[in-house]
Amino acid sequence: MSEQTPAPQVGIIMGSDSDWPVMKPAAEALAEFGVSYEVRVVSAHRTPQLMIDYGQTAADRGIKVIIAGAGGAAHLPGMVASVTPLPVVGVPVPLKYLDGMDSLMSIVQMPAGIPVATVSIAGGRNAGLLAARILGAHDATLRAKLTDYAHSLTELVAQKDAALQATL
Amino acid sequence: MSEQTPAPQVGIIMGSDSDWPVMKPAAEALAEFGVSYEVRVVSAHRTPQLMIDYGQTAADRGIKVIIAGAGGAAHLPGMVASVTPLPVVGVPVPLKYLDGMDSLMSIVQMPAGIPVATVSIAGGRNAGLLAARILGAHDATLRAKLTDYAHSLTELVAQKDAALQATL
Amino acid sequence: MSEQTPAPQVGIIMGSDSDWPVMKPAAEALAEFGVSYEVRVVSAHRTPQLMIDYGQTAADRGIKVIIAGAGGAAHLPGMVASVTPLPVVGVPVPLKYLDGMDSLMSIVQMPAGIPVATVSIAGGRNAGLLAARILGAHDATLRAKLTDYAHSLTELVAQKDAALQATL
Amino acid sequence: MSEQTPAPQVGIIMGSDSDWPVMKPAAEALAEFGVSYEVRVVSAHRTPQLMIDYGQTAADRGIKVIIAGAGGAAHLPGMVASVTPLPVVGVPVPLKYLDGMDSLMSIVQMPAGIPVATVSIAGGRNAGLLAARILGAHDATLRAKLTDYAHSLTELVAQKDAALQATL
Amino acid sequence: MSEQTPAPQVGIIMGSDSDWPVMKPAAEALAEFGVSYEVRVVSAHRTPQLMIDYGQTAADRGIKVIIAGAGGAAHLPGMVASVTPLPVVGVPVPLKYLDGMDSLMSIVQMPAGIPVATVSIAGGRNAGLLAARILGAHDATLRAKLTDYAHSLTELVAQKDAALQATL
Amino acid sequence: MSEQTPAPQVGIIMGSDSDWPVMKPAAEALAEFGVSYEVRVVSAHRTPQLMIDYGQTAADRGIKVIIAGAGGAAHLPGMVASVTPLPVVGVPVPLKYLDGMDSLMSIVQMPAGIPVATVSIAGGRNAGLLAARILGAHDATLRAKLTDYAHSLTELVAQKDAALQATL
Amino acid sequence: MSEQTPAPQVGIIMGSDSDWPVMKPAAEALAEFGVSYEVRVVSAHRTPQLMIDYGQTAADRGIKVIIAGAGGAAHLPGMVASVTPLPVVGVPVPLKYLDGMDSLMSIVQMPAGIPVATVSIAGGRNAGLLAARILGAHDATLRAKLTDYAHSLTELVAQKDAALQATL
Amino acid sequence: MSEQTPAPQVGIIMGSDSDWPVMKPAAEALAEFGVSYEVRVVSAHRTPQLMIDYGQTAADRGIKVIIAGAGGAAHLPGMVASVTPLPVVGVPVPLKYLDGMDSLMSIVQMPAGIPVATVSIAGGRNAGLLAARILGAHDATLRAKLTDYAHSLTELVAQKDAALQATL
Repeated sequence: MSEQTPAPQVGIIMGSDSDWPVMKPAAEALAEFGVSYEVRVVSAHRTPQLMIDYGQTAADRGIKVIIAGAGGAAHLPGMVASVTPLPVVGVPVPLKYLDGMDSLMSIVQMPAGIPVATVSIAGGRNAGLLAARILGAHDATLRAKLTDYAHSLTELVAQKDAALQATL
Repeated sequence: MSEQTPAPQVGIIMGSDSDWPVMKPAAEALAEFGVSYEVRVVSAHRTPQLMIDYGQTAADRGIKVIIAGAGGAAHLPGMVASVTPLPVVGVPVPLKYLDGMDSLMSIVQMPAGIPVATVSIAGGRNAGLLAARILGAHDATLRAKLTDYAHSLTELVAQKDAALQATL
Repeated sequence: MSEQTPAPQVGIIMGSDSDWPVMKPAAEALAEFGVSYEVRVVSAHRTPQLMIDYGQTAADRGIKVIIAGAGGAAHLPGMVASVTPLPVVGVPVPLKYLDGMDSLMSIVQMPAGIPVATVSIAGGRNAGLLAARILGAHDATLRAKLTDYAHSLTELVAQKDAALQATL
Repeated sequence: MSEQTPAPQVGIIMGSDSDWPVMKPAAEALAEFGVSYEVRVVSAHRTPQLMIDYGQTAADRGIKVIIAGAGGAAHLPGMVASVTPLPVVGVPVPLKYLDGMDSLMSIVQMPAGIPVATVSIAGGRNAGLLAARILGAHDATLRAKLTDYAHSLTELVAQKDAALQATL
Repeated sequence: MSEQTPAPQVGIIMGSDSDWPVMKPAAEALAEFGVSYEVRVVSAHRTPQLMIDYGQTAADRGIKVIIAGAGGAAHLPGMVASVTPLPVVGVPVPLKYLDGMDSLMSIVQMPAGIPVATVSIAGGRNAGLLAARILGAHDATLRAKLTDYAHSLTELVAQKDAALQATL
Repeated sequence: MSEQTPAPQVGIIMGSDSDWPVMKPAAEALAEFGVSYEVRVVSAHRTPQLMIDYGQTAADRGIKVIIAGAGGAAHLPGMVASVTPLPVVGVPVPLKYLDGMDSLMSIVQMPAGIPVATVSIAGGRNAGLLAARILGAHDATLRAKLTDYAHSLTELVAQKDAALQATL
Repeated sequence: MSEQTPAPQVGIIMGSDSDWPVMKPAAEALAEFGVSYEVRVVSAHRTPQLMIDYGQTAADRGIKVIIAGAGGAAHLPGMVASVTPLPVVGVPVPLKYLDGMDSLMSIVQMPAGIPVATVSIAGGRNAGLLAARILGAHDATLRAKLTDYAHSLTELVAQKDAALQATL
Repeated sequence: MSEQTPAPQVGIIMGSDSDWPVMKPAAEALAEFGVSYEVRVVSAHRTPQLMIDYGQTAADRGIKVIIAGAGGAAHLPGMVASVTPLPVVGVPVPLKYLDGMDSLMSIVQMPAGIPVATVSIAGGRNAGLLAARILGAHDATLRAKLTDYAHSLTELVAQKDAALQATL
C-alpha cells in the first residue's frame, strides 16, 4: 500500500508492529501527497542503540521529518528527538488501559531543549499530514496540494450536510 | 529583546498579552538561532475574522511556521491550522485552574485532517526550538546550529554533574 | 423525523454527520415541544468560513438559540459563540478515547467574554431541553409545557417505583 | 455595585457568601448590560425547602434566568433546575482541593430531562454574559449591546497587540 | 428475593430502576444478615418533593439507615442527607461514560455539615454491609453475625488458595 | 479542647500526628454533640500489629464507630475495617501532591466485603458528624440534636443572605 | 506451568484467584529464568493476620522477593511491605472501572519509610522480570541470562521489522 | 553529607541538578544504612550516549541497584533499565504543573520486558530504602538493620501518640 522510494523524506518508526494499525494512516497520508517515506520497527527500550543510530544518521540519509509512535511509557519520540536535529512528530498509541493518557503524557511533556511535535491520541493520519505540512513549508507545490486537500474537506462537509438534510 | 525583520519566517501569536510570559521563550529561542519572527496578539474568540485573515495570508507573506499559544478552551492553534497549509505549533498555556490540562486537551486532540504540533504545557521554549527544527529540515546551516545546541546541552549536564559532585 | 419549518427558532449544528446519533435527541426534544429547528453540518476546522457565516447571520434569520455538538478538540461551540450574540449550547461528543473529557474541556472552559452553555457528555436531549427553556423564558405557553414535562417525569418515577416494587 | 430593581430578570443564587467573589462578576456583567437582577444565598443542602420554594416561584416573580454557583458536590444548580422551567446557568466554584473538577462534574453531568447550562470553572462573568444572551434572544436592543460588547473585545485585542509590539 | 417487613430498618432508594442492578446487592446483603429493608425509586431531580418527604419522614417511620444510589451529577444521596438526621450511605452508580468518577465526585465531596458515607463505585454490596455495621453498632447479635461473615471471607480465601495451588 | 471520657463511643485514629489538623474537626464535632471519643496515632504501615489490635478490641471496649484518617496510599481505614465489625469512617487526608485524589482512591475503592464510609477530601468535620448520625440512629436525643444542628445551618444561611444583601 | 521447588526464592501473592490472569505472567517469567517461586492467595482485607504472618516469616523461609498484586483500594503490597524487610514488588490489578488508576494510586503512593516497587497496570510479567533483576544483582549467572533476554528482545524487534517490511 | 566510597553499590542518577532536592533523601537513606553510593547527573535527552554508557557499564563497576529520578516526560529510568540487567528504581519528580502525574505515567507504564521499580511521586527516601531492601535480600546484616528501622518507626508512632495525647 506504500510507495517507498530509494530516498525517503519521512521516516516512520514505531516500537512494535502492534503499533502499525495506528501508524499506517500516517503512511497513507504521505502517499496521498506523494511524499516518499520509509517504515521501521525501532524500539527505545528493546533496541536503544539501533534507535540512537537511526536518529543520528537520519538527516544524513535525507530524512527531513521523523514520525514516531509509541504507547504507555512512550519514550521513542522523545529519545529520537534527543539524537537528531530534525523535527520529530510523536503519536501517542493507546494501549489496553488508560486510553492513551499515559502515552500522551510521556510524549508531550518533554523538557525544555528537546521538542516533540505531538499529535492526538491514535492520530496517525494527522502525523502524516503534519509531516507533509513541514515539508510543504519549503515546497509551494506540496503546499498547494495541502490547500486543495483542505478544500476537499470543505466539500466533504457540504456533502455530509446534504446527506443529513436528506434524512430529516 | 527580539530581532524582528521585515520578512519574518515564524509567526508567534497568542490570544492575549497575558500569554506573553509563556510565549516569550519561543521568541528568545528563535532569536538564539537567528530565525526571524513576528509577534501578534490574535484571538480565536475575540477576533475570529482577524485570526482567519492572519492564517490565510501567512504563507503568502513568507511565514513558514506559526506558533500559537492559548489557554483553557484553547482554540487558537487548531483554528489557525484550519486556514493555513503551514505547520502550526500549539503551546498549551496553563490558566489559574487545572494546570493546563484543559489547554492541552483543546490543542492536541485535533480531528483527523487538521494537525497541530503540540508541545508541553507552558512549553514556549520548545515551541521555538521546534519551529527552528522545522526550518532546519531544509537548511543545513540551521540544522548544524541545532546540533551544536544539542552539544551545548550535553556540556551543560557535565557542568551540572561537576557542580553537584563538588557539593557531596 | 423532524418538523422543520421555514423559520426555525433553533439551529442545531455539528462538525460531522458522525455526531448525529448524539445530536438527534436534541432535535427530538425540540420536536416534542413544538419548537421549530434546522440541522446543519458545519465544521469549525473543515469549513471555518461557513461556520463564521452561519454564526453571523443566525440571529437575522430568526434563530434564537444555537446548539453545537463537537468532539475531541471541540472548537465549534466556542467559535460559533464568538460570532453571534445568541446563546450557544455546547454538547461534548465523546470520541473513541477519553470518554468525552477532552470534548468537555474544550467546550466548557471558555475564556471570559464568550460563554457557552455546556451540557453533559453526549447530552443531546438536554441540549434540546435547554434550548426549549431558553425560548420558554419569554413564552408562557412553552414554559407551561416544560412544567407539564417535569410532571410527566415525576409520574414516570412513580411508575418505575411501582414496577420495581412488583419485582421484589 | 449593583442596580437591583423591584422586578429583577435574573436571580443569582449561591450556597454560601464565600462563593460571592466567584459570583460577583456575574452581577457586574448583568449591570453592564442594564439587566436587573437579585442576589440570594440559597443552599441546596442547608436550606433545601427554601431552595425549592425559590425555584418554584421564580418564574411567577418575573425571573427569566437563574444563575446558580456551587462548589464540591455542587447540587444547587441541578436541584433548582429540577423545580423550575426556567433556564438555569451553573457556575462551578473551585474549592481548596481538586481545582473545581468535582464542582464541574457535579453540575454538568445532569441526567436527561433536567439540563443545566454550565460555564467554566469560576466563570462567574460568563454566567452573567450567558444570561444576557438568553434574555437577548428576545430583545434586539440587548442583542445589539452584546454585539457592541463583542466589538469592544476585538478592539481590546488590537490595543493589547499594539502594546505588545511596543515592548518588542 | 427480598424479605421486606412491615417495619423496615433500612431504606434503599435510587433515582431510576436502571440503577437496580447496582443496588440489588445492597438488598441481598441486608437479607443475608436478616435486616429488614424497603426499596424505593426516588429521584432528586424528577421527584424533588417526594425525595424531601421521604427523607424527612424516614426516621419517624423507623428507618435507621438510608442507602441512596445515583449516577452522573448524583445528587440523591447528598440531598436526602440534607433532610434527615439519619446516616446516609451513598453508592456512586457508573454511567456510560467516565467510569463513575462523576458520580463519585458528586456524592463524596459534600460540604461541611452534611456528611454522606460513600462506598466504592458500583459498591452496592458494601453499602448493604455498611448499613449492617451501622445497625450492629448497637446490636451485639448482628455484630456477631458480621464477625462470622468476616471469618467466612477468611475461609473463602483459604479455599481459593487451595484451588489455585491445585492448578499449579 | 476535648472531653474524653473513660468510655469513649468513637475512636479517632490517624497514621501520624501530621494528620491532626484534618482530624481535629472530627473531634470538635463530636464534642459539640456530647459524644465521647478517644484519639490515637495508629499507623497501618508503621504499627501494623497495633492497628490490628486496636481494631480487634475496639468493639469490646465499647467503641461504636471508628474514624480513621490517612493520606497517599491510605490503608488505615480499610485495614481497620478488615479487623472490626464496627462501622469505619474514612477521611482522605490530602498530601503535598495530587490534592488527595490518591488518598480518596485508596480509601473509597474497597473490595466487596469490607466497607469503609468515606467522606470528602479533608472532611474531618463531616466524619465527626457522620459518626454522630450513626450513633443517633439508635438515640432519639442525639438525633434531635442533629436536627437542631440542621436548623442552625438553615438559620446561618439566612444570616449570610442578610449580610450579603446589606453589601449590595 | 510452574517449577515450584521446596525452597522458593520469590513469593507471589494476590488477594483473590481472580487476580491470577494478571499475576500468572510473573510466575511464567520467573520460570523462564529458572527462579523458584511459590504462589499464594493472601488477602490484606480478608485475611489480615495471615498476611502479616506471611510477610513476617517470608525472609526466614528463604524468600528474597515478594510480588503482590491487588486491585481497587489495593492494600496488599503496602501492608506486606510493612511487615517484612524484603523488597516487595506491587502489581496494580485493573478492576472493572477506572482502568487500574485506583489500584496504581493505592500501591505506588506509599508513605516515606515503607517502599513498594510498583510496576505498570496489569504488569505481571514485568513484576517477574523485576524480581529476577533483584535476584540477579547478586547472581552473575542470572544477570547474564537477563542480558541474553535483552538481546532476544533486540532480535525480536529485528524480526518484527523484517515482517513489517515484507507487508509494505 | 554522603559517604561515597571507591566501590559504590548504588548509583543515583538524575537528569538535572534541579532534581537533587527530591533525590537527596535517597542518598541520605542509603547513608543511614551504610550503603555506599555514587551520585551523577545523567540525562536521557541531553546526554543519551552517556546515559547508555552509564547503564551498560554499571554492573561491571560493581553497582547493584540504580536509582533514577526524572520529571515530566521522564525517560531516564526506563531508558537506563533498557541497557542494564540491574534493578532500576524510578522516582517521579514533580514539576511545576500536573503534580508529578506525567512523571509517574512516564516511569511506571513501562512495556513488558523492561521493568522499572517505581516509587511514589517525590519519593526519594523510599527509593533509597527500596535499594537497601534489594541489597538486603542477600545480606542478613543489612536486613536486620532494616528490621530495626521498622521498629524505630513503630516507636516513633508511639511517641507521636503520646505527644498528641498530651495536647488533648
